[in-house]
Amino acid sequence: MVRYFRRGRASSWSELLRSDPFSVEDVRRSARRRLPRPVFDFVEGGADDEVTLGANRAAFRQLALRPRRLAGIAHPDLSTTVLGMPVRTPVLLSPIGLARLMSRDGELAVARAATHHGTIYAVPTMSTVRMETVRAGCSGPLWFQLTPWRDNELIARLVRRAATAGYTALVVTVDVPVVGKRERDLRHGFRVPPRPSLRTAHHFALRPAWSRRSRTEPPLAYENLADGPPLLADHARYINDRLANPGASWEDLKRIRTMWDGPIVLKGVMTAEDAERALECGMQGILVSNHGGRQLDTELATLDALPAVLEAVRNRAEVYLDGGVRRGSDVVKALALGARACFVGRPYMYGLAHNGQDGVSLVLDLLRAEIETTMTLAGRAGVADLDASLLTAAAVAIGDRP
Amino acid sequence: MVRYFRRGRASSWSELLRSDPFSVEDVRRSARRRLPRPVFDFVEGGADDEVTLGANRAAFRQLALRPRRLAGIAHPDLSTTVLGMPVRTPVLLSPIGLARLMSRDGELAVARAATHHGTIYAVPTMSTVRMETVRAGCSGPLWFQLTPWRDNELIARLVRRAATAGYTALVVTVDVPVVGKRERDLRHGFRVPPRPSLRTAHHFALRPAWSRRSRTEPPLAYENLADGPPLLADHARYINDRLANPGASWEDLKRIRTMWDGPIVLKGVMTAEDAERALECGMQGILVSNHGGRQLDTELATLDALPAVLEAVRNRAEVYLDGGVRRGSDVVKALALGARACFVGRPYMYGLAHNGQDGVSLVLDLLRAEIETTMTLAGRAGVADLDASLLTAAAVAIGDRP
Amino acid sequence: MVRYFRRGRASSWSELLRSDPFSVEDVRRSARRRLPRPVFDFVEGGADDEVTLGANRAAFRQLALRPRRLAGIAHPDLSTTVLGMPVRTPVLLSPIGLARLMSRDGELAVARAATHHGTIYAVPTMSTVRMETVRAGCSGPLWFQLTPWRDNELIARLVRRAATAGYTALVVTVDVPVVGKRERDLRHGFRVPPRPSLRTAHHFALRPAWSRRSRTEPPLAYENLADGPPLLADHARYINDRLANPGASWEDLKRIRTMWDGPIVLKGVMTAEDAERALECGMQGILVSNHGGRQLDTELATLDALPAVLEAVRNRAEVYLDGGVRRGSDVVKALALGARACFVGRPYMYGLAHNGQDGVSLVLDLLRAEIETTMTLAGRAGVADLDASLLTAAAVAIGDRP
Amino acid sequence: MVRYFRRGRASSWSELLRSDPFSVEDVRRSARRRLPRPVFDFVEGGADDEVTLGANRAAFRQLALRPRRLAGIAHPDLSTTVLGMPVRTPVLLSPIGLARLMSRDGELAVARAATHHGTIYAVPTMSTVRMETVRAGCSGPLWFQLTPWRDNELIARLVRRAATAGYTALVVTVDVPVVGKRERDLRHGFRVPPRPSLRTAHHFALRPAWSRRSRTEPPLAYENLADGPPLLADHARYINDRLANPGASWEDLKRIRTMWDGPIVLKGVMTAEDAERALECGMQGILVSNHGGRQLDTELATLDALPAVLEAVRNRAEVYLDGGVRRGSDVVKALALGARACFVGRPYMYGLAHNGQDGVSLVLDLLRAEIETTMTLAGRAGVADLDASLLTAAAVAIGDRP
Repeated sequence: MVRYFRRGRASSWSELLRSDPFSVEDVRRSARRRLPRPVFDFVEGGADDEVTLGANRAAFRQLALRPRRLAGIAHPDLSTTVLGMPVRTPVLLSPIGLARLMSRDGELAVARAATHHGTIYAVPTMSTVRMETVRAGCSGPLWFQLTPWRDNELIARLVRRAATAGYTALVVTVDVPVVGKRERDLRHGFRVPPRPSLRTAHHFALRPAWSRRSRTEPPLAYENLADGPPLLADHARYINDRLANPGASWEDLKRIRTMWDGPIVLKGVMTAEDAERALECGMQGILVSNHGGRQLDTELATLDALPAVLEAVRNRAEVYLDGGVRRGSDVVKALALGARACFVGRPYMYGLAHNGQDGVSLVLDLLRAEIETTMTLAGRAGVADLDASLLTAAAVAIGDRP
Repeated sequence: MVRYFRRGRASSWSELLRSDPFSVEDVRRSARRRLPRPVFDFVEGGADDEVTLGANRAAFRQLALRPRRLAGIAHPDLSTTVLGMPVRTPVLLSPIGLARLMSRDGELAVARAATHHGTIYAVPTMSTVRMETVRAGCSGPLWFQLTPWRDNELIARLVRRAATAGYTALVVTVDVPVVGKRERDLRHGFRVPPRPSLRTAHHFALRPAWSRRSRTEPPLAYENLADGPPLLADHARYINDRLANPGASWEDLKRIRTMWDGPIVLKGVMTAEDAERALECGMQGILVSNHGGRQLDTELATLDALPAVLEAVRNRAEVYLDGGVRRGSDVVKALALGARACFVGRPYMYGLAHNGQDGVSLVLDLLRAEIETTMTLAGRAGVADLDASLLTAAAVAIGDRP
Repeated sequence: MVRYFRRGRASSWSELLRSDPFSVEDVRRSARRRLPRPVFDFVEGGADDEVTLGANRAAFRQLALRPRRLAGIAHPDLSTTVLGMPVRTPVLLSPIGLARLMSRDGELAVARAATHHGTIYAVPTMSTVRMETVRAGCSGPLWFQLTPWRDNELIARLVRRAATAGYTALVVTVDVPVVGKRERDLRHGFRVPPRPSLRTAHHFALRPAWSRRSRTEPPLAYENLADGPPLLADHARYINDRLANPGASWEDLKRIRTMWDGPIVLKGVMTAEDAERALECGMQGILVSNHGGRQLDTELATLDALPAVLEAVRNRAEVYLDGGVRRGSDVVKALALGARACFVGRPYMYGLAHNGQDGVSLVLDLLRAEIETTMTLAGRAGVADLDASLLTAAAVAIGDRP
Repeated sequence: MVRYFRRGRASSWSELLRSDPFSVEDVRRSARRRLPRPVFDFVEGGADDEVTLGANRAAFRQLALRPRRLAGIAHPDLSTTVLGMPVRTPVLLSPIGLARLMSRDGELAVARAATHHGTIYAVPTMSTVRMETVRAGCSGPLWFQLTPWRDNELIARLVRRAATAGYTALVVTVDVPVVGKRERDLRHGFRVPPRPSLRTAHHFALRPAWSRRSRTEPPLAYENLADGPPLLADHARYINDRLANPGASWEDLKRIRTMWDGPIVLKGVMTAEDAERALECGMQGILVSNHGGRQLDTELATLDALPAVLEAVRNRAEVYLDGGVRRGSDVVKALALGARACFVGRPYMYGLAHNGQDGVSLVLDLLRAEIETTMTLAGRAGVADLDASLLTAAAVAIGDRP
C-alpha cells in the first residue's frame, strides 16, 4: 500500500553515487543541481527577507499530531471532490508561470502528470505553453488561472478562450496588484528568457545541460498573451508595466464573475473580511494563499490565516490552502483544520526540473504515499475523518534536520 | 554511593587518547565510531524530518527541577515494582529488533545485562536470537513483545512460545500498522543483513572490525519467525509486505488478550481516548510511546502526551514512557509526572555496539548513577517521593551543549 | 509606481561583479566594504552585548501583516505631516553626529537628500558641519537636535543659533546622561579623528580610499561647539567629561522649553510615565527611542515600548519611533500601531558611506518603494489607513536570511 | 564617574595586539588563554549537559529594562549593607575552592581585592590558603563558608577557627550532599594538584607559564583541612568519599546554628519551602543559588527561583542571588526583583587567572562601572530605588553576540 518510489534517471556518473529522491526536499536538491542559480532562485525565492516564506513552513511545525491506534485503516482513502469534481488526492497544483524554464514540455508536462494522478492543475495565464495546447494534451479536468489584469479586453479574451478550450473552473489571483520585491531576481537581473550576464555567467556555465537545452528549444514566451513579451524582458517589470492592475477592486471581480458560467476560486484571501467579500461576489472556492511568500513579506503564514477564513466562510464555499506544503503530514494538518484540499507550487516545479513529467509524477507519488502513511499511522480512514481532534499545539517547534 | 564507571576497552591506539564514556551521549559517539553508517543510522534515525525525534528530547528540557535541600537522603532508593515484579531501577529496556547488528550476542547480551541490573527487558519478535535462547540465557524476568501481525496463527504461535519459555508479560506494540518513512534507511538502501552497495561501500570499508565480525559470525536472521527473511531483504518492506497489519483493530487486541493469562502492556498509546480503550481491553500497563520518533513524524512528544494519559487512566493501570530518555534527570521527570517507569531503546543499543553486554551494563550504570545523583541533589529519598512538586516549567529551553 | 533603483557607482573591477544595492542591508554591506572597521563599528555597534540592538529588529518580526485584497490602491499616498509640516514620506532622519566620517559633505549631504525627498532631518549638535552651513545648503525644513548639556550657556547659544538659522523644531535627546558602554569603540580605541594604532592599522590599510580622503580633507571637528574637540580625542570620554549632564532633570527641559518658541520633540522616551511628564513640560512630539541600542543594553525594544507611550499620550502630542527600522514594512507596522512617523539613523549613514548624498537618496528611495509596495500589497491607500487591523502577532518569529 | 579601566599586563608580543579587557567576558577569554584547559574547565564547567549553566544566563535576558529619563542622577549610589555591614557595591564574592589554581596568592588575593573595593568575600572551606592567613592578610570584613560535612568534629573545629580568626558571618552551603556530575572534569581526569596525563599533556604544554609557576610554587593543598588531601587526588571523589554528607538534614543546620553567635547565610535555597525552613532554623540570610549550574542539571535558573523565595521570606531575612551574573545590568535586575545583593563566582576566578589580585579588582571595577552606567541610564539614584517598575518581560530573548 505505502510505497516510496525509486525513479530518477541517472544522467552522469556522479548521479550513480547519489540516492534517489525520497522526499520533496530531495527533489528540490536535485532541481538545484540541474538549474542555473538565477533560474532556481526565480522558483525558490520570496519577497524581501523571506520571512513569510519561512513562516509558511514553520506554521506546520507548530501543530503536532495526536495519533489514534488500532483504527483498522488498511486502505486510507485519499479521494475527495473539489468544486464537485472528484480527485484521487487532496493535493492540487497551483498556477506558476514559466514552467518551460524547468523542462521542455513545461505546463503541458504538469498537466499530464496531474491527469495521470487524478488531480487538477490550474494552468496560469503566464504559461509558456498555449492554454489550448495544454488542454488538448491531457484528459483530466483543468482550471485556468488569471489575474484581474489592467486590460479588461485581455481578461475577457482569456476567459472566453478558457471556456472554449474546456477549462472547468477559473482561479482568480488577487495578491499581485504589483509584483513583490524578490531580491534574488533583482540581484541576478533575472529576465525572460534567462541570459547570462557578467555577474551570472558562471551560474549558467556550471549547468551546461540546461543551457544546451534552452538554446536548442523554441524560445520561451508568454504564449497566452497576444503581444508576447519583449525580448530579454525583466519579468517583474513586464508584469508591473504592462499587465498588473494595482487599482483592481472587488468590482473587477464581479465583472469577471459575469463573464464565466462555471465556478471561480479566489486565490490569495488571507482574512475573514476578504473571505466575506469573496462570498458576496459569488465565489465557489477560496484559496488561502500568500503567493508562497513571494509578494508581501512578513505577511502571516497561510496555516495561521486558515482558521479565521474557515470560520467566516462557514461552509458556504470550499476553502483550500497553499504555501509551505512539503510533506504529506502538512496536507493532513491543513485538512484536519478544515481545508478541503491543498495546493502545491514549488514542489512540482522542482519535480519538473528533476525529470520533466515523470518528476512531477514523482512528487505527487511521494506526497500521496506520505499522506497514506500519515493517515494510516494516525488512524484515520479517509479525508472526511481528518478533524481537529487530530491536532494539538506543539510544545516546542523543532527545526528541520540540517 | 554515586560512581561514574570507567570501563571501555581500548581496542586501538586512538582509543587510548579518547576518554571513557561518562554519559549516554558518549556511548552514542562510541557506537557511531564502531558501526558502519547505514547500521548506525538504522538505530539512530527517525521518520521524515525527525521532528518528533527532536521533540522527545526537547520536552524534557521544557521541565525544570525544583530541588529541596537538607533532605537527608544518604541512599536514594531506586527500587520499585512494575506489574508487581520488583526492579532495582525504574529504567526498563524497550524491544528493538536486530540487536546482533550491534554486537555478537545481540538480544542475549541485552537480556543478561538487564538481569545483572535487576531490571526487565522486553524481547522483540524481530529478535536475531531465538526467544527460547534468550530466556534460557539469563535468570531475571523477561517480557515478550509482539505486534498484532497480519497472520493470526503467527501471533498465536508466538504467544504460546512466550508462555512456554517463561516470559512473564506481553508487550503489544500498536504503532506499526505500517513501517514509518525512515529516510536514512531509504537513502542507504538498508537491508538485512547489511551489504555494501556502490553508494555505501566506503561506510563499510571505514569500519573493518564490524565488517570482519559480520562475515565470520552466523548470518543475521529473524530467528523467531519460522520462515525467516529472504536473503538481502529490505527490512521495512519485509515487515510491510509480510507481517504488518494496517487493518489491525481493538478486536485483534481483545483476541490476544484471550490467548495470554499474564499481564499485557500496550505500547504506543499517545491519547486519553486510546488509554480508555486499552483499559476496556484489559491491559495492565500502558507504555506511552511514539516509537522513538520512527513512525509518525510531527507526532507530539511522549512527555507531552503523558499527563493526559495519566489522567485518563487514574491508576487503573501502570503507565510507562519511552522516547528521548538519555539522562537520569529525564527518568526522574517522567516519574515525577506520574509514570511508573521509563523504557530506553537507543541508549542500550549504543551500549551494545560500544562493548556488548558490558556496554549495555555501562549504560544502565550511567543512568542509575545519574538518577541517584539527581534524587540526592533534589532531596528525594525514593521513587515514591517523586511528584509534581519537583517540577516547574522551564522559563527558557536551552539547547544541548554542541 | 514601484521602482527599485540601480545607482551605485562602480569604483573598481570587483564592484562590477557585485550587484547594485536593493535593500538597506545591501547598502550596509557596501558601507562595511568602504569604511575602516573602527569607523564602521562606531556606526554599527550597540552597548554591552548588543541585546537591545537585536531586540529592536526582532520586535518587528513579532508582528505579522494581515493584507486586504482588491482594495484598488493604484497610488498609495505616503505623504503626511509632522508637527504640521508636510512630508512626502513618513521616514525622517535621526540626528547622528560625525557624518563626515562617512563621506565628504557629511551632514550637509544628508540634509540635501532629505530636502530632495521631501522629508526632514534633525541636524545633531555633534555635527561635523556647522549648523548654519547645513541650513544654508538646502531648502527643505530642518530640525535641530540638542541634549540637555551640562553647560546652560552652551544650550542657550545653540538654541539661539538654531532659531536664527531657521530651524523649525528642536529635538531634545534625553537618553545620554552619560555615553553607553560601546565595547566595539573601546576595543578599537576609537577617537576623533580616527587614527590607526598598532592594533587597528590593518583595518585602515585595507581601506586606502577612505584613508586617502580623510588625509586630504579638512580635519574632522565638532563644528557646532565653540571650543572644538581636543586633538585625537576619545569621543565618548570627550562627551562624558565635557558635555554630558548626568544630573539633567525635567527642570532643565522646562528651561529649554522657555528658550524656544517653536515645537519641541523629546527623543528617548520609553515609558508611559515619562511620556506624561513630557506633555507636562509642553512637548509637541515624543520620539520613542533607545538610541539604537547604543545606550542602555537590555532596555526593551522601541516597538514594544510604543503602545504604552501612545496610550499615555492619547493624541495630545505626536509620537514617533526609531530603532531597527530597515524595511518599508517596519515603517508600516509602526504607523499601524499608531506612530506618526519613523526615524532612521544607521540606514542613512550606510547610504552616506556608500555614495554620499546619492547614497542617502538611494536609502530613502528604497524605503519609499518598499513602503509603497507594502501598502499596495496590504491594500492600504494612505498612511491614515494604517491601523491595528493590519497587524497580528506572528505565530513564530523567523530569523533573517543568513 | 563612569570609567572602563585599562590595566592588563602585556606578557608577550601577541598580547600587544590584543585589546584590554572591557567586560567580564573579555576577562574570561584572557583566563582561557592563560590556563591549561583542564584547569579552565574546572572553573567553567557545569553538571551534565550544562543546561542550568545556560539557563542562569538566559534568565537575565528574559527581563528587559524600562528606563526613566531626566532623573537627575549625577552620582548613583551603589552602597548598601548586607547583614548590617556596609558595602560599597552590591556585588559580593562567592566561595569557590582552589583559587591558587588560578594565581599565586589564591584566596588571599581575592580577599585583598574585596577589601580594596569595600565588599565582602566568603572564604571557602576548600581554600588553598589557610583561613587565618587570609583573615590576617586584609582589613575588610570576611565571611567563612562551610558545608554540613559528614564529620561533626570538623565542622565544630572550622566554626571555632572562623570565630577566633574574626570572620563576621558564616555561609552554609546546602547544595552539595554529593558533588554533581561535571563531565568536563571526568573527561580530563581532573585531579588536585593537576597533573598532565597522556590525554591532557598537550593542554599543559600549551600553557608553559602556568605549568612553570605551578612547579615552582608550594604544592596545592586544602589548607583548612587538618589531614590534607591525598597526593594526586580526584577532587570530586575526595569530597564525596571523605567530606560530603548526603544524609545532612535541617537538624545539622540547627546544630551549626548553636555553634556560631553571628549571622548565618544559607547558600543554595531554591524554593519557598526551603526558605521557610531556613527561617525556622534562624538564618539571617538566604543565598538563592544552584551552585552555578555545577550540581543538579536542569534545575531552574536562580533568577527564576528568586521571586518565590522573596515572597516566602517577606523581609524576615536578607535574600541574595548568584549564578550567571556577568553584567552590571544583571545585578540591577536581581536587585530590582528584590535581592539585597548579588554574589559572583566565576567572574573573579577569571580575574584571578587574568592578573592575580589586580585581575579580581579589574572585574569588580568593570561590574561597578556597569552598574553605575545602568543606574544612570535607567534613572535610578541608588540601590534602594531599584524596584519592579524597572522591569518588563522581554518580548524576545536575543542570544549573546557570537
